[in-house]
Amino acid sequence: MADHASERPQQSGAAPILVASNRGPVSFRTEDDGSLTLRRGGGGLVSGLSAIDDPNAVWVCAALSDADRTAARQAPDGRLDRAGHDVGGQAVRMLDIDPETFARAYNGVANSTLWFVHHLLYQTPVQPAFDAGFRTEWAAYRAYNAAFAEALAAEAAPGAAVLVQDYHLSLAPALLRELRPDLRIGHFSHTPWAPPDYYRLLPDDVAAAVLEGILGADRAAFLTRRWALAFADCCEAVLGAQVDRDALTVTHGGRTTRLGVHGLGADAEFLRERAHRPDVDERLAALREAVGDRRTIVRVDRTELSKNIVRGLLAYRHLLRTRPEWLGNVVHIAFAYPSRTDLAEYRDYTAEVRRLAEEINTEFGTDDWQPLILHVNDDFPRSLAAYRLADVALVNPIRDGMNLVAKEVPVVSDRGCALVLSREAGAHAELADDAINVNPYDVIATAEALAEALAMPAAERTDRTKRLAAAATALPPQQWFLDQLHAL
Amino acid sequence: MADHASERPQQSGAAPILVASNRGPVSFRTEDDGSLTLRRGGGGLVSGLSAIDDPNAVWVCAALSDADRTAARQAPDGRLDRAGHDVGGQAVRMLDIDPETFARAYNGVANSTLWFVHHLLYQTPVQPAFDAGFRTEWAAYRAYNAAFAEALAAEAAPGAAVLVQDYHLSLAPALLRELRPDLRIGHFSHTPWAPPDYYRLLPDDVAAAVLEGILGADRAAFLTRRWALAFADCCEAVLGAQVDRDALTVTHGGRTTRLGVHGLGADAEFLRERAHRPDVDERLAALREAVGDRRTIVRVDRTELSKNIVRGLLAYRHLLRTRPEWLGNVVHIAFAYPSRTDLAEYRDYTAEVRRLAEEINTEFGTDDWQPLILHVNDDFPRSLAAYRLADVALVNPIRDGMNLVAKEVPVVSDRGCALVLSREAGAHAELADDAINVNPYDVIATAEALAEALAMPAAERTDRTKRLAAAATALPPQQWFLDQLHAL
Repeated sequence: MADHASERPQQSGAAPILVASNRGPVSFRTEDDGSLTLRRGGGGLVSGLSAIDDPNAVWVCAALSDADRTAARQAPDGRLDRAGHDVGGQAVRMLDIDPETFARAYNGVANSTLWFVHHLLYQTPVQPAFDAGFRTEWAAYRAYNAAFAEALAAEAAPGAAVLVQDYHLSLAPALLRELRPDLRIGHFSHTPWAPPDYYRLLPDDVAAAVLEGILGADRAAFLTRRWALAFADCCEAVLGAQVDRDALTVTHGGRTTRLGVHGLGADAEFLRERAHRPDVDERLAALREAVGDRRTIVRVDRTELSKNIVRGLLAYRHLLRTRPEWLGNVVHIAFAYPSRTDLAEYRDYTAEVRRLAEEINTEFGTDDWQPLILHVNDDFPRSLAAYRLADVALVNPIRDGMNLVAKEVPVVSDRGCALVLSREAGAHAELADDAINVNPYDVIATAEALAEALAMPAAERTDRTKRLAAAATALPPQQWFLDQLHAL
Repeated sequence: MADHASERPQQSGAAPILVASNRGPVSFRTEDDGSLTLRRGGGGLVSGLSAIDDPNAVWVCAALSDADRTAARQAPDGRLDRAGHDVGGQAVRMLDIDPETFARAYNGVANSTLWFVHHLLYQTPVQPAFDAGFRTEWAAYRAYNAAFAEALAAEAAPGAAVLVQDYHLSLAPALLRELRPDLRIGHFSHTPWAPPDYYRLLPDDVAAAVLEGILGADRAAFLTRRWALAFADCCEAVLGAQVDRDALTVTHGGRTTRLGVHGLGADAEFLRERAHRPDVDERLAALREAVGDRRTIVRVDRTELSKNIVRGLLAYRHLLRTRPEWLGNVVHIAFAYPSRTDLAEYRDYTAEVRRLAEEINTEFGTDDWQPLILHVNDDFPRSLAAYRLADVALVNPIRDGMNLVAKEVPVVSDRGCALVLSREAGAHAELADDAINVNPYDVIATAEALAEALAMPAAERTDRTKRLAAAATALPPQQWFLDQLHAL
């Protein structure tokens, strides 16, 4: 990259603020007639960036599909806004990365390696095995990160602020600094961070490159102090960096990177409005019809290996086996929508979830009581309806950067909802006082927590839910985004 | 246990020194005529304890089989020496623990849980799931540990020194202290120790009980400083104990436990003598016949999930694929003897090892060259013959308390042997300077290390082997044992 920079000096762009993330605020679909339709996405980042009232702000993202790539190619410099697309007020540069490179970087490195490392997901006796295939993927990941760095360098005004997002883009900060030392660069990790003993299973050069990539930022931020400190531990163990745990700084290679903590909260305003639209009311009525006057335990997750759906079902089964008073009197509503179905581990996991769900309904179901309602398709209004209805919310990931479900349920709950929360979720840092906290590996403890939650007196439930909602909305997305920007 | 102690005050025994371990120095077999035959075992502990010239020293161990249980029942108080068995100079008390309790404690808790935790072996998305079955196993583990504590309490003279061994007996020190506060109690962990983020997947009460059990000792010792510090980290994170990392002490509940480090070394005298007996010479001749004048890469392991045999084979395959100069010129001798075949994971792993070995021989084998010789039966003289013959020894565990193979090979090597060593083996702490060190998850780096080892000049190999042998034998078993005793 140094050579590259000296050969082709960068022209500064006009953007004073830039965001970079794998997934952008819009995506495209090819219609039958070959035309492209645009679809706007949601999420914390979209909401956060809307706080920026600057038409020159640029969001750099990757094309995720063939339709996206076509749109990116057709736009001048990939700038969708300049191609007349309505991208929502911000400028968007979508990168036309070739599909093989993208798949290797996104599936091979980001989702099958870095994600697994940070969530401690490997079956270590045989996984991972860093072989020649991984080396090809790693080269693609570097190319993907370099493409982002180059686009950011081209779009950024002198001294601009750049906010690079997540584990897909861990190399981009250092690559961008080489191209544009004038910029203020921030990186934000939305995942947990692994402890050194686990992190070091990455190939040595990869382990170092990821840390040094992020340390290329002026400020590296995390969802909780726990993950920030784990990152610092890795910098110390792998790079021999100097760490100041009180000041939250890491010094390596003559530069100091500040660490930051920003606990992304729920978007109360959006959720409360959205959760009371007719489509949600309609689904709420259908759920009420299905469960009758029974209590409900609700979980809503992507079918993600870290979300711990299987042990959640085992805990529910244990509850029914050991607390006969709940037979016929409770329904577990589990929404596990599809995720990463291109990875075999995820397909196997989904099959296991389905199998166990059937087992539970077979073991306990009666003519007029279905103990478990499992849906594996995505339906956002139905999720909101379940949030409103829930007597108990089960959020038991084995490890989670934050977990927004834990924060969203208390905000939209109709009558108060007891929250059973894994202590390994980042949200635990903020919600522990009013949640019922569990070790996610402990099926029996989880079952006992569910029983405690089901039996919680209504008044206590209401009080706790109020406090949970307050804690959950302490840092809404716009403020979360502005805080990062100001700290930079 | 407090109640128990007060109800039935212990009578002191006569033993001034006691050792407790799951496996004792002898085992029994039932012959066709119903009689019992005794077989003496080996290993570091047997060798270590032989340093004690005190007929009143007692070794307390568990009966591991029906034959053992019969022998234990037939002996007064389980004291095999008093039943006329020739147990090798020491007194041995063998505990007749009922087979179901034993299986639950040994397989369920020790080998399927604590071993998995300390070696980071779980497929975390679905394993472990601490359910009702585990609770039964945990109760058995407590009963098993209590049986040891009671037997030790009964045998120990006032103020005696008791050396409790390993993860099977993590509760025994605290249980014994309750019964006999007068004793000096040591505990030794032969495994690695997990980092807190992984250790805490144990149920909370179990995580605390294991730490507090070991902290019941006056001194808790480990094979390397790394594992001692990991234990201290867990005491701090789980118990809120006070840790002094320089003085190596842990203070909890008003008591301070000293931590110790004793890097068990190879028994040079025994190995050199044993490795030159006719049965070894015979096997050496057979191996030489099989490999001809080709170079050899040797590995010898139990077929243990942590030993990383699969990635070792993948590395060898990568070597053959990328370094054609070695085609026909090297043979990989892999001895993977059976272990824990009662656990499904181990049977699956063995099958994978066999499958991959066949694949490699099919891909590269020729009429006059078999690239890989895999034996899955145990044959100690053959292992020693392979040690003597090896040009390269591959010791690549993903995590290992020590790994004695890495220490034994340099001691008996005939012409010097290059050692490819995982940095996650405890032996790495002592052998890193003259080994070729690898990240065990990195198949390509391991293949490159093998290539480097194969190409190492003879003189360098000889020099390194000498230094490795010196480091490997710095603390032979007898001294290792005496050091612990004196430090206590």
